[in-house]
Amino acid sequence: MATKDTHSGIDGRRFWSTVMRSGDIGPGKAGGLCRLALTDADKEMRDLFITWCTEVGCTVQVDRVGNIFARRPGAEDHLPPVLMGSHLDTQFAGGKYDGIVGVLAGLEVLRTLDDRRLRTKRPLELVCWTNEEGARFTPPMVASGAFAGVFPVDWVLALRDDDGKVFGSELERIGYNGKTAVGGRGIDAYFELHIEQGPILDKEAVPVGIVVGGYATRGMHVDILGETAHAGPTPMNRRRNALVGAAMLAVAVNDIGWKYHATEGKATVARLVAWPNKAGILSEYAQLTCDVRHAEKPVAEQMLAEVKAAIPDCARRANVEMRMASEWQFGNETFDPGCVRLIREAAQRLGVPHRDILSQAGHDAYYVSRIAPTAMIFTPCRDGISHNEAEHAEEDYTVPGVNVLLEAVLARANR
Amino acid sequence: MATKDTHSGIDGRRFWSTVMRSGDIGPGKAGGLCRLALTDADKEMRDLFITWCTEVGCTVQVDRVGNIFARRPGAEDHLPPVLMGSHLDTQFAGGKYDGIVGVLAGLEVLRTLDDRRLRTKRPLELVCWTNEEGARFTPPMVASGAFAGVFPVDWVLALRDDDGKVFGSELERIGYNGKTAVGGRGIDAYFELHIEQGPILDKEAVPVGIVVGGYATRGMHVDILGETAHAGPTPMNRRRNALVGAAMLAVAVNDIGWKYHATEGKATVARLVAWPNKAGILSEYAQLTCDVRHAEKPVAEQMLAEVKAAIPDCARRANVEMRMASEWQFGNETFDPGCVRLIREAAQRLGVPHRDILSQAGHDAYYVSRIAPTAMIFTPCRDGISHNEAEHAEEDYTVPGVNVLLEAVLARANR
Repeated sequence: MATKDTHSGIDGRRFWSTVMRSGDIGPGKAGGLCRLALTDADKEMRDLFITWCTEVGCTVQVDRVGNIFARRPGAEDHLPPVLMGSHLDTQFAGGKYDGIVGVLAGLEVLRTLDDRRLRTKRPLELVCWTNEEGARFTPPMVASGAFAGVFPVDWVLALRDDDGKVFGSELERIGYNGKTAVGGRGIDAYFELHIEQGPILDKEAVPVGIVVGGYATRGMHVDILGETAHAGPTPMNRRRNALVGAAMLAVAVNDIGWKYHATEGKATVARLVAWPNKAGILSEYAQLTCDVRHAEKPVAEQMLAEVKAAIPDCARRANVEMRMASEWQFGNETFDPGCVRLIREAAQRLGVPHRDILSQAGHDAYYVSRIAPTAMIFTPCRDGISHNEAEHAEEDYTVPGVNVLLEAVLARANR
Repeated sequence: MATKDTHSGIDGRRFWSTVMRSGDIGPGKAGGLCRLALTDADKEMRDLFITWCTEVGCTVQVDRVGNIFARRPGAEDHLPPVLMGSHLDTQFAGGKYDGIVGVLAGLEVLRTLDDRRLRTKRPLELVCWTNEEGARFTPPMVASGAFAGVFPVDWVLALRDDDGKVFGSELERIGYNGKTAVGGRGIDAYFELHIEQGPILDKEAVPVGIVVGGYATRGMHVDILGETAHAGPTPMNRRRNALVGAAMLAVAVNDIGWKYHATEGKATVARLVAWPNKAGILSEYAQLTCDVRHAEKPVAEQMLAEVKAAIPDCARRANVEMRMASEWQFGNETFDPGCVRLIREAAQRLGVPHRDILSQAGHDAYYVSRIAPTAMIFTPCRDGISHNEAEHAEEDYTVPGVNVLLEAVLARANR
């Protein structure tokens, strides 16, 4: 394990106490966080984040989908900025580290430069992306996606959560409906530090993972259309229960995951909603949210094809209609070799043990990589547990990655 | 088809216009009703119902679970009352007739006696039972169940809807947290008129069904306990997704329904909730609400045993825990031969075509039959469609049943 490198690098204590301070905002029920996008807790965290950024001399802009950009001017300030960042929102049962350490690592980089009164050649920007998790508004990573031109801004603003609340209205409610245009400007590079959310670094006691690619992920909402009827007299052969159709498809998707388990494929049934979904009545509507993931893109495509083949089969068996409501994909992206090399060189220079790694989760970096040279640094989390309030990371395991981020960003911004 | 019998019996026009007036309160999205228990619409309907009852000289009492009793004194008023009634609440996608025609048929009986200035020997009471549907607060028929001593009053008052709202608080909010004790008093008899919610009377053009028994129904909530985890990196063999377990059990329950389809058995998956139930995360909790129904009680018991056998199997396959959260049963009851005979004799005397019939749905009459002689009259609904906004009944098909109710109640109350 690398030792702390506080004299030449960042202030590890300051960094970690900032992470702990964030961990007080939006407590979950079991020691973690429940800080959903565009809630009061999200607003409180955003406000504090902006205070911290302005304390180190940054100017702050918020774009129309609520992404926050804290800018530190460069010596040649007309040049496109080098971005760092991640997200501050969490899952319903989330940890204190997922996304958060990435944003606050970027803040610690800015604080360190401020301490040293160092001016980089290119400007730096620290970004907090809105609603990365997709926990409240699905799909995930909509705001970095909008920044990269993947999703139309108006479409993002019109998204609804499961209580019917609208993204744009909630953004306005918490005062983060910014005026800045979404994307459409030159970005020199983007660096994102994130906990691994897998067990490899923790098991191998390696503090830095250099992300060289991602699992190809294919996600979708499937709408299921049936008919309400009385749960008592309606004969089985006249039933069109959307909930049964959704359950059949859920089982089929899970089976596809197991079929590819030997090669580390995954298929996830994440969300099932139905209406009326009450005792005594059959449901006329259901929606299933699921995804498939595999390290090899052609295999992920095959898994997706198998899900699509299961849809008409389940529809027939449940006597309902099914149709694809929306689809998304991420994880095909390969990161920029130049940015990846800067991370590797920084780790080598600092003597930080490191290894190449694939990401199995989605990250804002995927979408940003479509419009700018991008790379990611992973840091360990205990047993790979994430999206669970038991998520845990250690200061000593995390600080080396932040120092690598500092070095890589400096090298890129000053080149 | 029987002709209208307006000169000697009830005022069919008045009765039907009252049903239509109720049909304006709590409109659904497709021409039916969405008048859930203890909502503002339910309050509006209850207030109007009480106005109607007091207009015919009744005194009104509300018990602690919100059941409304409108009392018309008897000549020997110390004798136990003859009850008539049903419910005024509906499903989320409900019709204008389910339950409602039964309450308003009782009102029309009271109005007819008032017109004729007839005093019965025994007092009459018209009752509106709270939350019969179980659409908002599950299980169904909790308030008639409490009246019959099946459910403790405090347990009913503590029930929560899927938004976390509490039965007792909502009752208080709409002003129907009455002071009268729930049940515990002598009842001479209970008569309930209800639409059939099945296709038999409509298909055979018979206006009156004499309910001689019910489908044995076994209902349950099953809790499913898993663990949250990230939808990406977590390997299939380490997942404990409660939503997948619930889907497996839903499919198994539906399969059991099909297994007994040839003998008109049914198994229903009515409700599935999960938490967090969001994109990107596995769910740690789910609850499935389901029931099985069969005309023969031993077969219903066998179906229930098969559901219970499926539970550990699904739990093992999904790597989750499952446990029975609550169970209920109804439909074993056989109605009182004396009360049934009064209905049959009334139909014969009036020349109304009638047939014996089984109920496949649950009714408040089941619970009341445990503490008082009880009988039910069914009237037709088009194609047997119910718990659907397309539910439809005709005045000419319904009025003969109301006249049978009038005759049977008079015979019972004056004996």
